Amino acid sequence: MSKSTIYVGIDIGGTKIAAGIVNSQGEIVHRLERSSNSAEGGPAVMQRASDLIAELIASGPYDISGIGVATGGQIHSETGVVFSATPIIPGWVGTRIKDTLESRFGVRVRAMNDASAAAVGEGRFGAGRGVSDFVLLTIGTGVGGGVFSDGHLVQGALGAAGAIGHMVIDCDGRPCNCGSRGCLEAYTGGRVIANRALELADEGGLDTELVRAIRSDISSGTKLLGHAAESGDQFASEVIREAGEYLGWGLVSLLNLFNPSLIIIGGSVAELGDLLLGPAWEVARAHSLRKGKDPVRLVRAQLGNSAGLLGAASLLWSTNADYACPA
Amino acid sequence: MSKSTIYVGIDIGGTKIAAGIVNSQGEIVHRLERSSNSAEGGPAVMQRASDLIAELIASGPYDISGIGVATGGQIHSETGVVFSATPIIPGWVGTRIKDTLESRFGVRVRAMNDASAAAVGEGRFGAGRGVSDFVLLTIGTGVGGGVFSDGHLVQGALGAAGAIGHMVIDCDGRPCNCGSRGCLEAYTGGRVIANRALELADEGGLDTELVRAIRSDISSGTKLLGHAAESGDQFASEVIREAGEYLGWGLVSLLNLFNPSLIIIGGSVAELGDLLLGPAWEVARAHSLRKGKDPVRLVRAQLGNSAGLLGAASLLWSTNADYACPA
Repeated sequence: MSKSTIYVGIDIGGTKIAAGIVNSQGEIVHRLERSSNSAEGGPAVMQRASDLIAELIASGPYDISGIGVATGGQIHSETGVVFSATPIIPGWVGTRIKDTLESRFGVRVRAMNDASAAAVGEGRFGAGRGVSDFVLLTIGTGVGGGVFSDGHLVQGALGAAGAIGHMVIDCDGRPCNCGSRGCLEAYTGGRVIANRALELADEGGLDTELVRAIRSDISSGTKLLGHAAESGDQFASEVIREAGEYLGWGLVSLLNLFNPSLIIIGGSVAELGDLLLGPAWEVARAHSLRKGKDPVRLVRAQLGNSAGLLGAASLLWSTNADYACPA
Repeated sequence: MSKSTIYVGIDIGGTKIAAGIVNSQGEIVHRLERSSNSAEGGPAVMQRASDLIAELIASGPYDISGIGVATGGQIHSETGVVFSATPIIPGWVGTRIKDTLESRFGVRVRAMNDASAAAVGEGRFGAGRGVSDFVLLTIGTGVGGGVFSDGHLVQGALGAAGAIGHMVIDCDGRPCNCGSRGCLEAYTGGRVIANRALELADEGGLDTELVRAIRSDISSGTKLLGHAAESGDQFASEVIREAGEYLGWGLVSLLNLFNPSLIIIGGSVAELGDLLLGPAWEVARAHSLRKGKDPVRLVRAQLGNSAGLLGAASLLWSTNADYACPA
């Protein structure tokens, strides 16, 4: 592989599609982003993603060697078919990502779960560099993740491991998008936090400017709550603190199961920063087996919205078997 | 390593200490078992374990090449010091297993968590042979486990991964021995199931022969419940079913996090068989992401009480880095 070999990395999410021309040092040479318009359904989203890649390639003299795709749901690592997904993109299950893109662009295509891809990206180029045992949680509309153990991504038999958002934290708890209940995602996903704020406001007969703003733009709910909490709004602080404590219970399980030396938190909800992560870490330290004696650290992700596309692109210059991080 | 090289494997548990002379084919040439008398505390148990090894070696013309130790709690993989343990053996934390045995017997000593050791044992010689991605749960007084991902034991930064009994399944739930609450162990550990039967009997004003038998010998509680359920006792069936359903919620998290192709269940509580595992599997299939479409299987462990000592002994003929199962 020459140093000038370049690839496309693309991250197809429920809200946005981001694509970049990536070199093998993990640098993004050129980047484009579009709305997913996911309500239009799987085939339309796949078409939009494919068109975005064509636009990206056409925007420069790019001779790409492959396309790495990160997306929500669970992707079969060999066939590149989406075989399970929460309904963030309706009709996404069954999408033949690999076949579709290979036949249009004539290059090698690798597809994987977006949160796993983000873990690979952060491990190779971001907050996890040089760390053998880490857990990445990506908290956005959904909650995903990826786990590195001894320098290797925990992939599972079908490449579907790391569904951290669907760890059970309360088996008698809230219904989850996945059809089950009590999943971590049902407590700390962005949409869930905003809805919880409205629920608590209704219960308490609260009708403030903040509540009306959230109600009129639920997708900005966590951001609005964050700004309000920073300005001293007790209600907003309390809603975020509650979500943080639930996140903490998820971290307890992760610390006990994986014994990582690092937990990396990314995604839009992580922008809430210490308002969310403070209470989360407090619960995690108090209730995990090793408690305060565990030398584990909690840090924010470094690659932002590009972790997934960088990780997915980097699959092109490695084999499936070694999603390893250079130590 | 010649084929006749032999080792000692020893499993130091809260109830029993089992030790065996093991060859490198994973066969136990000679085996001894003693009560732990764990109430006497850590130093006494360590002395008893050490004496049992001496007795075992003296019982034949055994020229051993090393000692592998499996025990409850979390063991530092390099120093062989117990650095965290639930109070099953009081004062077990701080026990210097490796130093103590190396200075007495003059051979190499490796120590690891008993459930991880059992996973290595089942992976190399038992139900997990040839399987790259499996989870072992050992359900006895406590609940432990070990996870293999892509043929390697998930060890974590300190070798303390796999504390499956301390996954959170209900963050508002029952207090656990570890000082936290809602852990899987607080619902499916053997002692817990027996206590739950007494609690339900008290609530319902039930005073049957079964209830009196459990009350007078709580450590045989799950066995008594199992026999009663097999004879058609509805109360016993219900108690076991409830524990099984909670176990199922733990399996949901394990399936979603690790995507194994096999779950192996061992330990004394697993002797309840389908009474426990039927409801558990039903919950796991209904609530995990891939539901019935997941080609994962649930099987019973094959090596019984010897899995831990076999796995620990097998550490002597491999390096720390490759707890791998021959596929």
